[in-house]
Amino acid sequence: MKKSLGAVTLAFPLPAFLVASYDPSGRPNIMTAAWGGIASSDPPCISVSIRPSRLSYDSIMANRAFTVNIPNARLAAAADFAGIVSGRQVDKFAKAGLTAVKSDLVKAPYVAECPVVLECELYKTLDLGAHTMMIGKIIDVKAEEGLAGEGSALDMAGVDPLVFNSGGDYHRVGASVGKAFAIGKTLK
Amino acid sequence: MKKSLGAVTLAFPLPAFLVASYDPSGRPNIMTAAWGGIASSDPPCISVSIRPSRLSYDSIMANRAFTVNIPNARLAAAADFAGIVSGRQVDKFAKAGLTAVKSDLVKAPYVAECPVVLECELYKTLDLGAHTMMIGKIIDVKAEEGLAGEGSALDMAGVDPLVFNSGGDYHRVGASVGKAFAIGKTLK
Repeated sequence: MKKSLGAVTLAFPLPAFLVASYDPSGRPNIMTAAWGGIASSDPPCISVSIRPSRLSYDSIMANRAFTVNIPNARLAAAADFAGIVSGRQVDKFAKAGLTAVKSDLVKAPYVAECPVVLECELYKTLDLGAHTMMIGKIIDVKAEEGLAGEGSALDMAGVDPLVFNSGGDYHRVGASVGKAFAIGKTLK
Repeated sequence: MKKSLGAVTLAFPLPAFLVASYDPSGRPNIMTAAWGGIASSDPPCISVSIRPSRLSYDSIMANRAFTVNIPNARLAAAADFAGIVSGRQVDKFAKAGLTAVKSDLVKAPYVAECPVVLECELYKTLDLGAHTMMIGKIIDVKAEEGLAGEGSALDMAGVDPLVFNSGGDYHRVGASVGKAFAIGKTLK
C-alpha cells in the first residue's frame, strides 16, 4: 500500500556533485549539487541545477564553464561542508582541504582529490523557478589511474561515490546485482 | 594521477528510473532512464532525458504526463529489460511482471511494485541533440508504507534503490557515512 508524501523532491539515487568554477574575481570555488545528472548522449551533456542567488551561478555565467567532481566516501564531510557555507564568506577549497587544479580545456578548476571529474563548457541554461539548470557540454572526463573496470565502465568500488538521501544522510554504493543490458534478457 | 577518458557520459551515482506513460493508443508502457534527476525545488521538478525516436517520447508529448518509478534491487532484471526492448514490439509491463496502476492525479500509470513513485505533469522540454529533456512538475510522491526514515527522508535500506554504473552493472546502495547538513560542520 502506498502513502502520499505530497509534492516533494525525492528520488533515488541522488548524487552529491561538487561543482567547481572560478568566481568573478578569479578565485576557485565549489558548491554541492544534488539536483543534476547526465542530460544527453550526443553531444555528451550533464546538468546541474543552481539557485540564481548562488556565487556559483554568477561564476558559471561569467566563465561559461564549470567542472563536475565526483566525491568519494572519504570526502563526505568536505562535500557536505561545500553545501552549507557560501564562497562569498569563506574559501571553501582551503577550508575543506581540497586542491584546485586549473583545467587546460575549460575556464574552471577541478578538484584534485575527487576520483572522477568532468570538464564542461556551459551549453544551455533553463530557468525552472527556484533553480536554473546549467547544462554543460562534457569536453573531457578524467579519472584516477587504476579505476578502469570492465569495458567502458569504471570500477564502482574504486570510485566509491557518495549517494545523497534527500533530507537524510550520505551513503556509499554497495554490491553489484547484475550486468546492464544483460540481466534483462532473461525476461525477453 | 588522472587519466583522460574523453568526452564520455559518466557520472556517479546514476539512477535507473522507470518512466511510465500511456502510449498514443492508451496502453501503459515503461522505459528505463539513467539520464535524469531532480531539477528544481520550487516548483518541485524532475528531469528525464528521452530520445525523440522512443515510443515514450510520443506518449509523454501526447498526454503531457509521466511517472518516475524507483525500482529496488529485486526489480533489477525488470529495469534492465525495460531498457533493451521497445514498447512498440512488446507489452513491457506484462513481460516484466509489473502492474500498471492508473494515477488519479496525472494522465499516466505508475508501477505498483516500485517502492517510490513520482507523478508528474510535463512542465517544459529542452532539446539537447540526441536526447530531449522532459521536465516534469512533481504533483505527488507516493512511497510504500513503512519506508519513513528520519525527518523527511525515507529509509535508504528500505527503498533499496538501484544505482547504474554506466557501461557496466547495477549496484545496491550501501552503508551510511554521515548525516547531511551536519558532518560538514566539523570543517567550519
